[in-house]
Amino acid sequence: MSKAMNRNVAMLPGSFDPPTMGHMNIIERSAELYGKLYVVVADNIQKKCLFTAVERRSMLAVLLKDFKNIEVCVWQGLVVDFARDHHIGVMIRGVRALVDFGYEFELAMTNKQLFPELEILFMPTDPTYFILRSSAIKEMAAYGADISKMVPPLVAENMRNRIKLLT
Amino acid sequence: MSKAMNRNVAMLPGSFDPPTMGHMNIIERSAELYGKLYVVVADNIQKKCLFTAVERRSMLAVLLKDFKNIEVCVWQGLVVDFARDHHIGVMIRGVRALVDFGYEFELAMTNKQLFPELEILFMPTDPTYFILRSSAIKEMAAYGADISKMVPPLVAENMRNRIKLLT
Amino acid sequence: MSKAMNRNVAMLPGSFDPPTMGHMNIIERSAELYGKLYVVVADNIQKKCLFTAVERRSMLAVLLKDFKNIEVCVWQGLVVDFARDHHIGVMIRGVRALVDFGYEFELAMTNKQLFPELEILFMPTDPTYFILRSSAIKEMAAYGADISKMVPPLVAENMRNRIKLLT
Amino acid sequence: MSKAMNRNVAMLPGSFDPPTMGHMNIIERSAELYGKLYVVVADNIQKKCLFTAVERRSMLAVLLKDFKNIEVCVWQGLVVDFARDHHIGVMIRGVRALVDFGYEFELAMTNKQLFPELEILFMPTDPTYFILRSSAIKEMAAYGADISKMVPPLVAENMRNRIKLLT
Amino acid sequence: MSKAMNRNVAMLPGSFDPPTMGHMNIIERSAELYGKLYVVVADNIQKKCLFTAVERRSMLAVLLKDFKNIEVCVWQGLVVDFARDHHIGVMIRGVRALVDFGYEFELAMTNKQLFPELEILFMPTDPTYFILRSSAIKEMAAYGADISKMVPPLVAENMRNRIKLLT
Amino acid sequence: MSKAMNRNVAMLPGSFDPPTMGHMNIIERSAELYGKLYVVVADNIQKKCLFTAVERRSMLAVLLKDFKNIEVCVWQGLVVDFARDHHIGVMIRGVRALVDFGYEFELAMTNKQLFPELEILFMPTDPTYFILRSSAIKEMAAYGADISKMVPPLVAENMRNRIKLLT
Repeated sequence: MSKAMNRNVAMLPGSFDPPTMGHMNIIERSAELYGKLYVVVADNIQKKCLFTAVERRSMLAVLLKDFKNIEVCVWQGLVVDFARDHHIGVMIRGVRALVDFGYEFELAMTNKQLFPELEILFMPTDPTYFILRSSAIKEMAAYGADISKMVPPLVAENMRNRIKLLT
Repeated sequence: MSKAMNRNVAMLPGSFDPPTMGHMNIIERSAELYGKLYVVVADNIQKKCLFTAVERRSMLAVLLKDFKNIEVCVWQGLVVDFARDHHIGVMIRGVRALVDFGYEFELAMTNKQLFPELEILFMPTDPTYFILRSSAIKEMAAYGADISKMVPPLVAENMRNRIKLLT
Repeated sequence: MSKAMNRNVAMLPGSFDPPTMGHMNIIERSAELYGKLYVVVADNIQKKCLFTAVERRSMLAVLLKDFKNIEVCVWQGLVVDFARDHHIGVMIRGVRALVDFGYEFELAMTNKQLFPELEILFMPTDPTYFILRSSAIKEMAAYGADISKMVPPLVAENMRNRIKLLT
Repeated sequence: MSKAMNRNVAMLPGSFDPPTMGHMNIIERSAELYGKLYVVVADNIQKKCLFTAVERRSMLAVLLKDFKNIEVCVWQGLVVDFARDHHIGVMIRGVRALVDFGYEFELAMTNKQLFPELEILFMPTDPTYFILRSSAIKEMAAYGADISKMVPPLVAENMRNRIKLLT
Repeated sequence: MSKAMNRNVAMLPGSFDPPTMGHMNIIERSAELYGKLYVVVADNIQKKCLFTAVERRSMLAVLLKDFKNIEVCVWQGLVVDFARDHHIGVMIRGVRALVDFGYEFELAMTNKQLFPELEILFMPTDPTYFILRSSAIKEMAAYGADISKMVPPLVAENMRNRIKLLT
Repeated sequence: MSKAMNRNVAMLPGSFDPPTMGHMNIIERSAELYGKLYVVVADNIQKKCLFTAVERRSMLAVLLKDFKNIEVCVWQGLVVDFARDHHIGVMIRGVRALVDFGYEFELAMTNKQLFPELEILFMPTDPTYFILRSSAIKEMAAYGADISKMVPPLVAENMRNRIKLLT
């Protein structure tokens, strides 16, 4: 690892649209492993989101305010560029099961080719949370399903308000 | 993570029968990420090995002698017990591709159930080395294949001698 | 299973856009296993379909008219709500091969979390029909391929007429 | 389904060496779905087991004694022959995750070819239990791991005694 | 194989939007195996592409101009119809890893059902190139990533110009 | 491809213990694609087989006697060495479904590393035959199952005689 990279600083990128209990589990466990953890909200203009990147960052910032070593950021661009700019040595990716893994492996290979000094590590999701894919939760919420066990209360409330506005 | 667990100390367990270039790649990258790395040779009596656990430890110790933060050990028992005894916070597992992942995910869940404080992280193998499964290399060596790109020279020589003895 | 749920009543939800020979195979086999089978056409407004939900129900109703224990319905909403409303004890999902299974497993876990009393069972598709994915059939039909072995004659005719209208 | 086959009678075959909490979960849920459920202990002479088929049947019989519609049997031979002899219409197979599914799908196709009237249905395991593979539990128990959350108390005790005898 | 089909003539269909180093590797290896190889650019109107089918053909034609037995074509329609029209006996599909295979297997089954005389063979991609999915490369290029190791220089230059125009 | 390698000569290696209908399907289709096809019976001493390598070769030779361009051989050693010795340009591997593919991909990478001039191509098995794994057929035959649709009549008879001897 190059001198400039700091193995004690990690990043956890994602869309977080919205943040789920599964995300919270991975973030909190990662925060225990590193001196500093950046939670990076990807602002991908091509992806249609329920919440803006700023809204997603705000929700995460409130939910994670007790973790002194976590910083929540919005990033428009390649995640490896965020890593390079912040001298980050490790990227953590939560993997829920075999379903995720093919895509994650390929993404890791691509990012490693763009930025070989960055190590990408996969953290297995707690099985309790492994069903909580953001896209499925949004679809269920739109049909009025009870999502209170799938997302933190703050997120559930914001989703209800947002979906009310949309319909 | 419990106070007693040290997030700066990691372990990398395996059979290493024999150590391959792929193993070396994962070990060397892991050693960059932690202050201390235990490379743990599993001494599983039920598994028939080409080299004894002590021989495998010796080879690894020679190959890794320049890494001051690596310690090579032999362990007979559950890997989580090694982690508990040595206050290890992280276990690294190399994953070569989708083929490995189903088994690794299950193993991680089992170990997490036995010892919840331990975090298990998967490190993707460099594609250059992803074919180097120990069992395949042993079979190829037995048929006289050139394995010089698959294992370190020391291992290649030991394999040639061992196979000569067996035939 | 709660008293109100009837283990002799099953549902088979899907888009059925259009119904394929593979669907027919799963429906007919399921109808043999339960006293009553609801075939539920999902009316998902966000999904662009070739046939309206009412058209899909009509086709299925004609094709299945000889099965006295089958009822074809249109449903807009969560499938678990249909199950709850109709006191359905079992949901059947056809799985064609490994390709389907990851998604189906996750969907089953999600539905089970929303409605724990419902049992979701996977029925393996007959290999003869395992290639007949609706989306692929539509694409092939648009290019003039012979789809007469992939869908029932009534569906083939309706597809030809619909595609003529669209072009 | 042939007249002779009874859609209200199901079978659940397995090695059950030993029965795990995951097995119990699948068995109890299956018993709710059918009027009669045969739990069939496969007595495969080529497979080296920790407990004899009779011992496994005895443990299951004790554990399931409150389920009036469950009968535990030992069977030496093809499972489809058991189904044919007992006029069983449905075989249930628990599937824990993607890892199981490839093998299960193939096995189902083979059994269906040998006995087309039998329907084979897959029941997804509760994620809480999805790690409890019998072979892993035996290995852990041999190393003295605490398996009390993985198997029923009766099984845990029998395993401890058996392993003591072996060592 | 029917008399009219020529086992020495193969086709390699794809979107090639844009052609990658991985595509080049598969094309060049395939050209060694057959007397004549058609590289067929699929012109699928429903798919939004960065380059038009004619532009993609032109790039490939320039890149492959030294291969006397390769002909680059644009085709609007079913690939099996191209094969039938040109008496092609073999279709080659590059597969990068397990991720591709499920989809490819299904596509092969579908094409075989439409045109049983055509043999579809899968050629494993060189691991060096296995990450180079066209869609990922486009996304990276849009964010200004260095893609010079992922696509031939001509393609890299065309992508830079095209993306400049779009922004 | 090196001059010495002949792209019109292919090999199809396997254990063929015993040859199944699925094997016959892959062999016959491969024989249509090449001027010469070697069917290579692997004589792996470490693998316990029902039939000796010579017996397997004899069965295949009888079953394939009408194919003038097929030669059945026994080989003890690395398959790539057979390819090198016989100036073979292509190795065909039948793949039945996703289940096979992970292993086959890895094996192909290994063989390609040992002998880069050899191209390894995967031929998808006809779904009609995709369940016919040799090991499963042997187990079923041992229990007296009707295997007449799974293997050629000659093989079925030899299996019956062999199993009678063993019991």
